[in-house]
Amino acid sequence: MSKKWVYLFREGDATMRDLLGGKGAGVAEMTRTGVPVPPGFTITTEACNTYYEIGGTFPDGLWEQTLEALKDIEAQTGKTFGDPTNPLLVSVRSGAKFSMPGMMDTVLNLGLNTATRDGMAQLTENPRFAADAYRRFVQLFGKIVLGVEGERFEHVLDEAKGHGQRQDTDLSAAELVQIAETFKQIIKADAGVDFPEDPQEQLRAAIAAVFRSWNGRRARDYRRINKIADNLGTGVNVQAMVFGNMGNDSATGVAFTRNPANGSPEIFGEYLVNAQGEDVVAGVRTPQPISRLKESMPEVYQQFHDIAKQLENHYKDVQDVEFTIEKGKLWMLQTRAGKRTAAAAVKIAVDLVREGVISKETAVQRVDPHALDQLLHPMIDPQARKSAHVLTTGLPASPGAASGKAVFDPDEAEHLATTGEQVILIRVETAPEDFHGMVAAQAILTARGGMTSHAAVVARGMGKPCVAGAGDLRINYAEQLVTVNGTTIHKGEWVTLDGGSGEVFAGRMPTVQPALSSDFAELMRWADEFRTMGVRANADIPHDAQVARSFGAEGIGLCRTEHMFFEGDRIDAVREMIIADTPEERREALAKIEPLQQGDFEGLFRAMAGLPVTIRTLDPPLHEFLPHDDHEIELLATKLGIDFKKIKSKIESLREANPMLGFRGCRLGIIYPEITEMQARAIFKAAVTVRREGIDVHPEVMIPLVGHITELKPQEEIVRKVARELFAEAGVTIPYLVGTMIELPRAALTADEIAQVAEFFSFGTNDLTQTTLGLSRDDSGRFLPLYVERKILTDDPFQTIDQRGVGQLVRIGTERGRATRPSLKVGICGEHGGDPASVAFFYQAGLTYVSCSPYRVPIARLAAAQAALGEARRDK
Amino acid sequence: MSKKWVYLFREGDATMRDLLGGKGAGVAEMTRTGVPVPPGFTITTEACNTYYEIGGTFPDGLWEQTLEALKDIEAQTGKTFGDPTNPLLVSVRSGAKFSMPGMMDTVLNLGLNTATRDGMAQLTENPRFAADAYRRFVQLFGKIVLGVEGERFEHVLDEAKGHGQRQDTDLSAAELVQIAETFKQIIKADAGVDFPEDPQEQLRAAIAAVFRSWNGRRARDYRRINKIADNLGTGVNVQAMVFGNMGNDSATGVAFTRNPANGSPEIFGEYLVNAQGEDVVAGVRTPQPISRLKESMPEVYQQFHDIAKQLENHYKDVQDVEFTIEKGKLWMLQTRAGKRTAAAAVKIAVDLVREGVISKETAVQRVDPHALDQLLHPMIDPQARKSAHVLTTGLPASPGAASGKAVFDPDEAEHLATTGEQVILIRVETAPEDFHGMVAAQAILTARGGMTSHAAVVARGMGKPCVAGAGDLRINYAEQLVTVNGTTIHKGEWVTLDGGSGEVFAGRMPTVQPALSSDFAELMRWADEFRTMGVRANADIPHDAQVARSFGAEGIGLCRTEHMFFEGDRIDAVREMIIADTPEERREALAKIEPLQQGDFEGLFRAMAGLPVTIRTLDPPLHEFLPHDDHEIELLATKLGIDFKKIKSKIESLREANPMLGFRGCRLGIIYPEITEMQARAIFKAAVTVRREGIDVHPEVMIPLVGHITELKPQEEIVRKVARELFAEAGVTIPYLVGTMIELPRAALTADEIAQVAEFFSFGTNDLTQTTLGLSRDDSGRFLPLYVERKILTDDPFQTIDQRGVGQLVRIGTERGRATRPSLKVGICGEHGGDPASVAFFYQAGLTYVSCSPYRVPIARLAAAQAALGEARRDK
Repeated sequence: MSKKWVYLFREGDATMRDLLGGKGAGVAEMTRTGVPVPPGFTITTEACNTYYEIGGTFPDGLWEQTLEALKDIEAQTGKTFGDPTNPLLVSVRSGAKFSMPGMMDTVLNLGLNTATRDGMAQLTENPRFAADAYRRFVQLFGKIVLGVEGERFEHVLDEAKGHGQRQDTDLSAAELVQIAETFKQIIKADAGVDFPEDPQEQLRAAIAAVFRSWNGRRARDYRRINKIADNLGTGVNVQAMVFGNMGNDSATGVAFTRNPANGSPEIFGEYLVNAQGEDVVAGVRTPQPISRLKESMPEVYQQFHDIAKQLENHYKDVQDVEFTIEKGKLWMLQTRAGKRTAAAAVKIAVDLVREGVISKETAVQRVDPHALDQLLHPMIDPQARKSAHVLTTGLPASPGAASGKAVFDPDEAEHLATTGEQVILIRVETAPEDFHGMVAAQAILTARGGMTSHAAVVARGMGKPCVAGAGDLRINYAEQLVTVNGTTIHKGEWVTLDGGSGEVFAGRMPTVQPALSSDFAELMRWADEFRTMGVRANADIPHDAQVARSFGAEGIGLCRTEHMFFEGDRIDAVREMIIADTPEERREALAKIEPLQQGDFEGLFRAMAGLPVTIRTLDPPLHEFLPHDDHEIELLATKLGIDFKKIKSKIESLREANPMLGFRGCRLGIIYPEITEMQARAIFKAAVTVRREGIDVHPEVMIPLVGHITELKPQEEIVRKVARELFAEAGVTIPYLVGTMIELPRAALTADEIAQVAEFFSFGTNDLTQTTLGLSRDDSGRFLPLYVERKILTDDPFQTIDQRGVGQLVRIGTERGRATRPSLKVGICGEHGGDPASVAFFYQAGLTYVSCSPYRVPIARLAAAQAALGEARRDK
Repeated sequence: MSKKWVYLFREGDATMRDLLGGKGAGVAEMTRTGVPVPPGFTITTEACNTYYEIGGTFPDGLWEQTLEALKDIEAQTGKTFGDPTNPLLVSVRSGAKFSMPGMMDTVLNLGLNTATRDGMAQLTENPRFAADAYRRFVQLFGKIVLGVEGERFEHVLDEAKGHGQRQDTDLSAAELVQIAETFKQIIKADAGVDFPEDPQEQLRAAIAAVFRSWNGRRARDYRRINKIADNLGTGVNVQAMVFGNMGNDSATGVAFTRNPANGSPEIFGEYLVNAQGEDVVAGVRTPQPISRLKESMPEVYQQFHDIAKQLENHYKDVQDVEFTIEKGKLWMLQTRAGKRTAAAAVKIAVDLVREGVISKETAVQRVDPHALDQLLHPMIDPQARKSAHVLTTGLPASPGAASGKAVFDPDEAEHLATTGEQVILIRVETAPEDFHGMVAAQAILTARGGMTSHAAVVARGMGKPCVAGAGDLRINYAEQLVTVNGTTIHKGEWVTLDGGSGEVFAGRMPTVQPALSSDFAELMRWADEFRTMGVRANADIPHDAQVARSFGAEGIGLCRTEHMFFEGDRIDAVREMIIADTPEERREALAKIEPLQQGDFEGLFRAMAGLPVTIRTLDPPLHEFLPHDDHEIELLATKLGIDFKKIKSKIESLREANPMLGFRGCRLGIIYPEITEMQARAIFKAAVTVRREGIDVHPEVMIPLVGHITELKPQEEIVRKVARELFAEAGVTIPYLVGTMIELPRAALTADEIAQVAEFFSFGTNDLTQTTLGLSRDDSGRFLPLYVERKILTDDPFQTIDQRGVGQLVRIGTERGRATRPSLKVGICGEHGGDPASVAFFYQAGLTYVSCSPYRVPIARLAAAQAALGEARRDK
């Protein structure tokens, strides 16, 4: 006996998604719940896969089982396939496990030929309907099954209608019959085959076409983009036709059981009277809102309303349904979970809990953390957007929308901002010395750099929109303008960015500010109930810390002390420190920076009262703080009273072939211990000061880029010595921790040793990704997109953690660190801390907390809750 | 009862080195073998360590046991410590586990005071001898035990001798007595204490001084440099004095049981009649060769000769002995393994095997692989060296010595070389485009770059001397000169380099070419008998391959195809290929390179007939092949007929922030598959051609910088496809392998996956070190030396593999790779392949072979044999 390839709808259910595909399982489940569904059957995904395995032929028994199932439909409908006296017509639809718009469209009215057409005409006493149905069928079959260019048919139709002088409905039965004949000639000419008049032949060809569509270009592209496996196969659904176009007591429509835009709990949809489903989708006529149905067919509407609620309750989620009314009888054709906006997702999830339909756990798992970005940032007014001209699209580096006047210089940006102007800073790429300009700007636009470039990281940290790596920009600093795809924007002209989509627009566009609903707050509260992993924020200045705290951050996981080095005049002292020849000179310069850093830390401690604040000692290569062109060097030389040549030669001596692997991180503090001393002093003085205000402070001092325990040890000793001395002096003792970043493979591999000294680890997954994969985030733009496109990598490893490689080191480091020190706190403070898939991984790896940019804190909270709830969310 | 702190010589033996120190264990062993040794005892290293632990005081029982042991000496000698009628005098010497020149010198004649001095005078009937002995003792004690500046005593002595008008021996007893008294006043004045007349007090102070010397500045420095642990402690040896200065039948000397310079089997040494040991060491009088002793005291000589042979046979190695003849009686004072040159080490080891003293295994383990460098490269004539002026010292990047005319430009170097000139290429640093100049030069000198800089790696590969990173050089390309520490060398002036020491000399110096002895060949044959791990060479051109083969390489482990890209005109085609916009243009340029590469590979296959040749596909970032200054770009533009701006913009677009982590390795071949295709074609065409000549060829194609199996797979497919096609065309099938470099942490961590495709691995430990440690070899010069000095790292990880970190990945990669593919060949082709300590590690990690630069092949062979023989060589 051959395998069971075919399931009647009543034989399946929702759990059989793998075998029957989403649509098949859905219709089966609907059938099972007693909803009126036209009878039919599903050919399994296995049949599709087998079709490919055996070289594009039907597997043994498939056709026999299909004919058998067809008999069942015939029995249920009382109609017979191919019988001119009472013909059964069917639809044929593809349906894979995951919804795939890229696959085969539906073929309707299959079973029609000239004989059954005439039978239909007689039966319905409506020759025009029959002729129209036949015309539609030949057209669809020709296009979808036989692959004839759709334009060819449209052209004939268009001509028949006098090029827009008449409507579809104006065409007579005779005209339609003639059009169908012309269609058949086109098919013969283009596809080289006769249009099959035999209904069984039609069915056989349509099933094969569905199978083939699984490997069509569009379907493969869709799967690649949406990361769907190629070996799932598609099901084929064959279902008795019902007709929404059998008169004014017939109709067809689509609806959501709740509003998918804002989540409000009313049925939301539209329908067309006397039409087939394709008319709704194609937008040929303007459909009516579903509420009209209540007036025109109150009983049918009530039945529909009850079924909608029944389906929603059955599936415990908003449903997106298709229905047809045939001569006053309601048929449900399809149901599936409804796609919705983030705002709707939140409201619906919370409402369903209140209605007792789902649990809080389910609600928390229902909302895609990624989607929260929509809720947290301003967006371009959707109305304005429609008419906007997109200049170019870069990387969506930091979400949100903003308009401002184009400015190409950070100093000018700062200056204009103080005069109340809104500006957009446009740079080839940004460097730490541009920081003040970024602070002043509404948003940042760069021509170079990736999702973790300086501009992107800093912008996300500040919650400012940023479009990075817009390679089409040709920036001319000298003339203060940018040319992009033929348009030139001069300094002072308005531009608008959408950091969520990466789009750049000319001109000023209105934006809408999102308001966080009480439902959102409620959902996040529930998330926190289930969440077991901590969520902190990366924040360098008190304002960011406050924002982070308002978003629910439970501490600071990373304060990059050097981000304060560019503020105001302090950069001069920093440069003096770098140019110093002796420890004494260095100390002198550091003494100027110390009180400023202390002030910064005091602000952070106050903002984070009662919560831990992790402060990283100086990390970047020193040359990042020095000017690069001769003019600026000259200015600095004059200011500091130091010889131009000396500064120039110092800058030259700090030049590195590979700064990422160079003189940075703890290497700075080891060679110049006085820097670490100063920073430790600023931290503990600030802690003592704030503690005296009655505020609870929890400093955690973090040493970066440690590879050997022998690097951490001397730095730890400096920190502890400074703390001891200051506490003795102040007569106060403040508990604190000393720990390290784990951002080099060697650190992870020798975590057992490093944990002898470190009281906490924080995985710096940005740098760990760079070193583990030998991949510079600044330079990989040349090939990384191609890598992802060609499936060499499934994701950009700087956005979603490479679990097999970098993740392995995270696991190794965590396990070995805790083997030495069971109480070890282990966090992560790379960009991955705000990526839901990565957060799930960190949860599995047993991390104590993740730390991300302030605006990603809610995302991380929700993702961490979902991870704790133990289900990988798969909303496809 | 207190611990045993003191061992009589007859209580110890050679195995007690840890407890008694090297010297103590040696003297004990000598005593045990029946050699005439003055009686004495050793205070243990434990006593020294305890001395420190309890705050610088003698441990309980130490002094009592010392006095007890002293009685034993008194009993054996019949003399009594402090007895004026027959005084016992002793020497006090430090002696740690490893010989440490940095520690305390010997104190002789301890026990003398004015009373015993007079007793000695009476006993020996030689008041001058007694007065001289006393004078020497006070001087030494004052200097060594009490820390008085030696110069102070020398000054007095010099004055007494009329500033060189008289000899030591001209001083009368009375004068000497007076001098000693003056010495005592100096001691009182400078050290603030009276010279101790009580012999027991003298002994106690001398023992404490030895203990203290363990932590003296010089000793600590010595330990740091020689990597000796700080917690070993030193022993103290107290021994009855014998006198070589009791007349002309007395003498003292040092000797090697074989010639330590060339290894010839005669006793080699020198002695002084009527002198104490310190006179020999101090070089006050010119000693006589030991052969004279045979004439002057034939019986004593015979006894000495027999004892020397007895000791050599006992220790089974050349001995470095000290002896004294006191009134015709021979006393042996010390014996230890003799230090020797590499040539001597080889000859002695081979001779000792022939004499049946040691086994071949022992011989192979006896020779320090590092020392072989001396044998393989020319050296500066030692005579000429004495009077030479060292301009500066850089890193000893590639051993050997060479003289040549200074040249600052690679083109000029090439030009001058073709006219028969010897030139030294002097550059700030070298780049691949300087390759032709390096080939032409005798040696290379750079101002920047480390032991694994481009200059160093290329020079070692060619066996050319190189001094790298000589930071004192101020090179002025414009004026074609270099200034170094005040001296200016113009173009065309002679300079000489010693790449083994890093020294740079002005002028032309004669060099001596080493000849490899038949003993060397014999030793290497024995090494190969014991060796189980393969040794290959990194060689890019046929000549290097021939050299490598003559040194015993068993194949090529790494051929860097790009090293041939700069030869002759082919760089133009390479540049054309890089600048190409389309695959077609690229293919056109590649077609020009293909026959040239094929020719190179044919040469390699012929040179390595029957042996495997591993060829790596293109690896370096493309911008390395492009010119950098505008003038050169213009030349190229004219040559290629391409717009200057286009080339300039291409170069700009290839610029990278961190090229080490950028667009290189397999990333090139993935984005431009036509490059890999061309290289594969060149390889297999060459293989077919050479195979047709009847030569056995074994190509191994190696894909670089793979991190994901998905990167290796498409490259492997290209290689196999090309091979299939060419073999089909040629009607020949040649066995070949496709494998990968493991040079990224991710590759090692996912080696199980990668081995599904790779048939062999080769660890690229240079890059693996860079990524695992986050350390750029080009940039780490700023802090790495300080790291090593401060013991943060024990070794430069680019010279000796970081076993705990990088080595862990080597082990992981090997284990996981073999778990998937048990037959996996695993090699290493980084610079570590020629480092003995690293070779030992690779042996332990189970590698199939190491591959190193040709001139290091013998070193690797010997190190691999030693590793197989299972003993870590410790010659300290």
